[in-house]
Amino acid sequence: MDTKLNFFVVLTLVSIQFLSTFPKAAISNVSIYLHTTSEIKLEKENEDPTVTKMFHYKMLSDLLGSKEAAKSSMLYSYKHGFSGFAARLTDSQAKEIEAFPGVVQVIPNQVHKFHTTRSWDFMGLNDHSTTNLLTKSNMGEGIIIGVIDSGVWPESESFNDRGMNPIPPHWKGICQEGQLFNSSNCNKKLIGARWFVKGILDQSQTPINISNGEDILSARDSSGHGTHTASIAAGNFVVNANYEGLAAGLARGGAPRAHLAVYKVCWSFGHGGCTDADLLKAFDKAIQDGVDILSVSIGISIPLFSYADQRNSIAIGSFHATAKGITVACSAGNDGPTAMTVENTAPWIITVAATTIDRAFPTAITLGNNLTLWGQSVDTRMHNHGFTGITFSDRIALNDSDDSALGCKRGSLNATLAAGQIILCFSQSSTQNIFSAAISVAEAGGVGLIFAQYRSDGLESCHYIPCIKVDYEVGTQILSYIRKARSPIAKLGIPKTIIGKWVSPKVADFSGRGPSSISPTVLKPDIAAPGVDIIAAYIPFGAEKSSGFALLSGTSMSCPHIAGITALIKSVHKNWSPAAIRSALVTTASQKGTDGSNIAEEGSTRKVADPFDMGGGVVNPNRAIDPGLIYDIETNDYVKFLCGTGFSSKSVRGLTQTKANCTKNRLNELNLNLPSITIPYLKRKVTVSRKVTNVGPVESMYKAVVEAPQGVNMKVEPQILRFNKTTQIVPFKVTFFTTGKVYGDYRFGRLIWRDPKHTVTIPISMRVIFV
Amino acid sequence: MDTKLNFFVVLTLVSIQFLSTFPKAAISNVSIYLHTTSEIKLEKENEDPTVTKMFHYKMLSDLLGSKEAAKSSMLYSYKHGFSGFAARLTDSQAKEIEAFPGVVQVIPNQVHKFHTTRSWDFMGLNDHSTTNLLTKSNMGEGIIIGVIDSGVWPESESFNDRGMNPIPPHWKGICQEGQLFNSSNCNKKLIGARWFVKGILDQSQTPINISNGEDILSARDSSGHGTHTASIAAGNFVVNANYEGLAAGLARGGAPRAHLAVYKVCWSFGHGGCTDADLLKAFDKAIQDGVDILSVSIGISIPLFSYADQRNSIAIGSFHATAKGITVACSAGNDGPTAMTVENTAPWIITVAATTIDRAFPTAITLGNNLTLWGQSVDTRMHNHGFTGITFSDRIALNDSDDSALGCKRGSLNATLAAGQIILCFSQSSTQNIFSAAISVAEAGGVGLIFAQYRSDGLESCHYIPCIKVDYEVGTQILSYIRKARSPIAKLGIPKTIIGKWVSPKVADFSGRGPSSISPTVLKPDIAAPGVDIIAAYIPFGAEKSSGFALLSGTSMSCPHIAGITALIKSVHKNWSPAAIRSALVTTASQKGTDGSNIAEEGSTRKVADPFDMGGGVVNPNRAIDPGLIYDIETNDYVKFLCGTGFSSKSVRGLTQTKANCTKNRLNELNLNLPSITIPYLKRKVTVSRKVTNVGPVESMYKAVVEAPQGVNMKVEPQILRFNKTTQIVPFKVTFFTTGKVYGDYRFGRLIWRDPKHTVTIPISMRVIFV
Repeated sequence: MDTKLNFFVVLTLVSIQFLSTFPKAAISNVSIYLHTTSEIKLEKENEDPTVTKMFHYKMLSDLLGSKEAAKSSMLYSYKHGFSGFAARLTDSQAKEIEAFPGVVQVIPNQVHKFHTTRSWDFMGLNDHSTTNLLTKSNMGEGIIIGVIDSGVWPESESFNDRGMNPIPPHWKGICQEGQLFNSSNCNKKLIGARWFVKGILDQSQTPINISNGEDILSARDSSGHGTHTASIAAGNFVVNANYEGLAAGLARGGAPRAHLAVYKVCWSFGHGGCTDADLLKAFDKAIQDGVDILSVSIGISIPLFSYADQRNSIAIGSFHATAKGITVACSAGNDGPTAMTVENTAPWIITVAATTIDRAFPTAITLGNNLTLWGQSVDTRMHNHGFTGITFSDRIALNDSDDSALGCKRGSLNATLAAGQIILCFSQSSTQNIFSAAISVAEAGGVGLIFAQYRSDGLESCHYIPCIKVDYEVGTQILSYIRKARSPIAKLGIPKTIIGKWVSPKVADFSGRGPSSISPTVLKPDIAAPGVDIIAAYIPFGAEKSSGFALLSGTSMSCPHIAGITALIKSVHKNWSPAAIRSALVTTASQKGTDGSNIAEEGSTRKVADPFDMGGGVVNPNRAIDPGLIYDIETNDYVKFLCGTGFSSKSVRGLTQTKANCTKNRLNELNLNLPSITIPYLKRKVTVSRKVTNVGPVESMYKAVVEAPQGVNMKVEPQILRFNKTTQIVPFKVTFFTTGKVYGDYRFGRLIWRDPKHTVTIPISMRVIFV
Repeated sequence: MDTKLNFFVVLTLVSIQFLSTFPKAAISNVSIYLHTTSEIKLEKENEDPTVTKMFHYKMLSDLLGSKEAAKSSMLYSYKHGFSGFAARLTDSQAKEIEAFPGVVQVIPNQVHKFHTTRSWDFMGLNDHSTTNLLTKSNMGEGIIIGVIDSGVWPESESFNDRGMNPIPPHWKGICQEGQLFNSSNCNKKLIGARWFVKGILDQSQTPINISNGEDILSARDSSGHGTHTASIAAGNFVVNANYEGLAAGLARGGAPRAHLAVYKVCWSFGHGGCTDADLLKAFDKAIQDGVDILSVSIGISIPLFSYADQRNSIAIGSFHATAKGITVACSAGNDGPTAMTVENTAPWIITVAATTIDRAFPTAITLGNNLTLWGQSVDTRMHNHGFTGITFSDRIALNDSDDSALGCKRGSLNATLAAGQIILCFSQSSTQNIFSAAISVAEAGGVGLIFAQYRSDGLESCHYIPCIKVDYEVGTQILSYIRKARSPIAKLGIPKTIIGKWVSPKVADFSGRGPSSISPTVLKPDIAAPGVDIIAAYIPFGAEKSSGFALLSGTSMSCPHIAGITALIKSVHKNWSPAAIRSALVTTASQKGTDGSNIAEEGSTRKVADPFDMGGGVVNPNRAIDPGLIYDIETNDYVKFLCGTGFSSKSVRGLTQTKANCTKNRLNELNLNLPSITIPYLKRKVTVSRKVTNVGPVESMYKAVVEAPQGVNMKVEPQILRFNKTTQIVPFKVTFFTTGKVYGDYRFGRLIWRDPKHTVTIPISMRVIFV
């Protein structure tokens, strides 16, 4: 037992690095610099990247005094998607170069992190009902999805290339070799792989020791996160996938015939994480390589950071990707359910919230008094004790002077008293996980764990002892029995898989919530997709060795769902822009759950979800393929938006690498043609412009249906939109007047354009404030 | 400046002790023992308390071997409201005495804490619109409200006895003398005072040093909490009360003609707090003294603790008070908004949630670019800088390697860069408060603070510099300006008081939420009352010296609102039981806010509040006085309920000190005649019994109006209730059938009995689970 546990702890240490909140990067001597060469570039369209790179070296040499110094300082030169470079500099050098002509912005290299929830256990799901869209799209044939993450485990069954078409001709990337990874690891499914490590190596204080297994210096995944997300987006068919006999069935990604290109930027070295320098390089390369879609389940945990605006590496990288027609899906973050916790809020990103699905793993707990209570578990192997003694962790605490035994922290339990018992523990914080409690119980000789917690964060396997998650209510009922019974006993049932019986989907507790604190006029998240208890491919380590699949929860898992669905749409509508695809997803999303009632937030008490929880709603792929109308956006509209939010021309040029010439018109902020209207401060009256593009039958007519937010009057002009051969784009205006006498809350409404076949719905969020 | 700041820090240290989560009491050598002498007591109704006390001493002498040992071990003998004693014992002695005949339960002496929110600043409110009820009740004349808390500042204007009637004849208490407190401190308003310190003294590891000002050894309040709560419940009229010129007006308690008796059990020694031993003694004495109502704004912060059931000191004390006709109001705790955080959940307690009111203190922040944003502030004195430099705390961090400057932790700011600037800080956690950030900014030479936070926790004054609270959204807008401007400047406006313009009431973020994890069949909280930014009397320390009033937020403040309103009702309906009064409050409560929309939870995004947030709704005193029907409960019903929840007869006898003989009938748990129906596990069908007592016109007829929870059919029998001279109590049954196909959520409904004049509404909460 001891050996196994020890091995496991090592694994957990590797994994947990991605979970912890990273300390703010010491503003070290690594910084990222972006400069605007766009004026030149726009004039010389096909400029040789080598010229750009030389320009970068020249600038750095001028600063540092020699070519040699420049060479040793330069980390990356970004020259495909956008122009800029990463270099190692002192603070004063950074200030100095800021004044150089052509330099617009200086960003310190920060560490980002994964969007997986606190759990690190393993199992499976695949239930999109996208049969129709799957067929229409040939399952994403011909589309390349780039996944910027922790790499990939290429031998996973999900990345076999059975049935795959040849590599598309627009692919220009490579299968970069490295430690335990050679070019033969790529195939017609996994067509490309690259890894970017300079940023994180520079960030680490200690030198990397490869031999200790902290990570693998190649695109090979050592954490499992990237393997999981890639297989969610585009994993090939795997028959008879299951986790410990649960949820058995066919496993596949959203677009099983799409190709995958992985970009490893997240590492397990030191504190672990993914740095801006590596991220930007990955975007730059992915754009050059010819990916059609990017899936990025990475973010910064604190919505507020020293550069709280749209100028972080993910926002910048995705802007340039979007400008080149590449859809970028990002995770909304796992810091919900508090308001203003959504991350990746740039208006060109599809920001994805996470929901539950309609599957559960109910597990009976039968007490000695014959009362049966229910929890959930995914540990099928060891629930067969029959009746066994049960006790409460605090009763068998090693040390009475603190609360550590309540949550079964390691070393808190008295082994003499724990031996042979099922232990009931109560999670003491939202970050404490069942897995460490299970190790603690197993180490003390306990034979089972019942783990009561406030907030659900997805299921996890405990491997060494059966463990069941219950809510606090059930936990205290069991506690009450333990206290009243003379010799309390309990029997742990075997988990079952049930489908369709639980209220679903529900927005996950942990899913990052709007409004966006950075751009309050942009509705974020955009859309919701499954992200709780998702089974997908995993690295074959530890107890998962036999399975190769893991059960994970997080917006990291919901993001590649959208990437996969986008591949299906893109393979049908090749010319749709990223904004058009986003519009199709948002305007067709569901606001009702499987039982016909409004979609709620997770938790036993029922709060109806609103646009700040799930954007337009939960993705509905089969409707998204035929949205009727789309709200399209061109790159230049984003530039106007950025000017509207108050950035200087210089800043906007740096971010967008265009010749932006900002005129300050705040209405441009509200008039960005998003499939949503969000007004954080409505005083009396405001008029907002939108335009829709017909993508349905050429001759069409749509009527407006208005659901105004409470306390607000809403007028649409015109009320009827007519499309014909000459007119496929029609603008309209929506005017809002306040009618209420009291202020302060956001209220929600909808604007629907309806024809006999289509319902094009956009969410409206509005806060009236006093004047 | 230095002297003032230092002085302030000392005050904060005293205060902050009540805010921090107390470490779990080391299971020390102090324990509370309750034994059942009820069999004897019930037979000899007026037994001499001295005999009971001798019995306690005899038992302890038998255990310890000598009278002397018993004498030095005994802390308290409880002999009025109930029987038991507190004594200092070893763990093995505790085990030994548990086996003594007559001993039912052994509770370790734990430390409880105040229900004030994290804020410790000061200001005012008084707006109950109870004019009618006030008149009818003669403002609570003749009623005695006992306040178990941190004592009282008797010289406060709120405790003057102008216009007060003589002390009621049923008062049997005393005005106990002590340090800085003599019997002349009592008057016709403050008719009694006692203090109980043995429990906390024993709990403290270090000897108490009176001279260092940690606390005052008498009923005199050294923290302000007890003065505040007592004056909310029954403070006399104080004209021209205000805080720094804001919210000026008449100040008074809910029942300005009721009398007050204070029981000091909460202390500032050591870690501070209120122990079970002292609490039980206070209940015991209050019952003996003849109070009519008890207000207890105290609880244990973790809803789960080693004795997670109805057998803690507040539950026990309030049971005996209730049995003697004394209404006990308790705070619901400040650990919301997570589900299952409600405290003080015994079914005989009125558990009070906290709401906002319709007053705000908007304060303009004008930026150099002429944009005006709004926050709230109560610091009127120092907002007159004109335009001043503004910066972001993280820009002027002393140490770049951590995040402490983001939240303006003490010592995190570079004084050279902070000097003369307004500093923008972002709260990094829900427990970080503006006050410590203000000290930090002031120490660094800053001249103003803008404090952005996720969750509202009420306003606070910062005294030394003007400080404004904003939400994250406004915070990041200001940050965006600071980053974009070359020399950012801002002007801080002067706070105004506005009334009636904000959406209200809203359930406060911090207010403890149901369902009750301990008794999930009992709806908790019962009701909601104002508890955010409440102005009431305070100790005259520090910057408040001139004012004598403080602005506090917490369920500690909402609880005495209900105590005060109860005094008004009781003064009209002298014979109503505590359950009748609770029923009147719950069935007449409001579910709609001032704008006619459903009451919401606090926060900018709108989630409609449900019974687990606010029980029946927000208290509506003028309707509560004439409820039409009441759901009454007798002491014996609670005994049946306790048996129904699975307690043994022995346990129930210990708690209730009755001759309980439990028969296990779980329906008794659902059939407790509460003004609510809560079914945590509905499988197919269940029938629940209730009965209503007519307190309106003798000849009355009520019709049932049913609002069934979604997915549930609901049938009431009979549908019509007829009352006449011979029939004033009518039973009825409600049957629930499941109709939905999916399970898991709580859904809410209502049952309303209506006659032409009355609407008697009870909330229904129900969760359907799979079978």
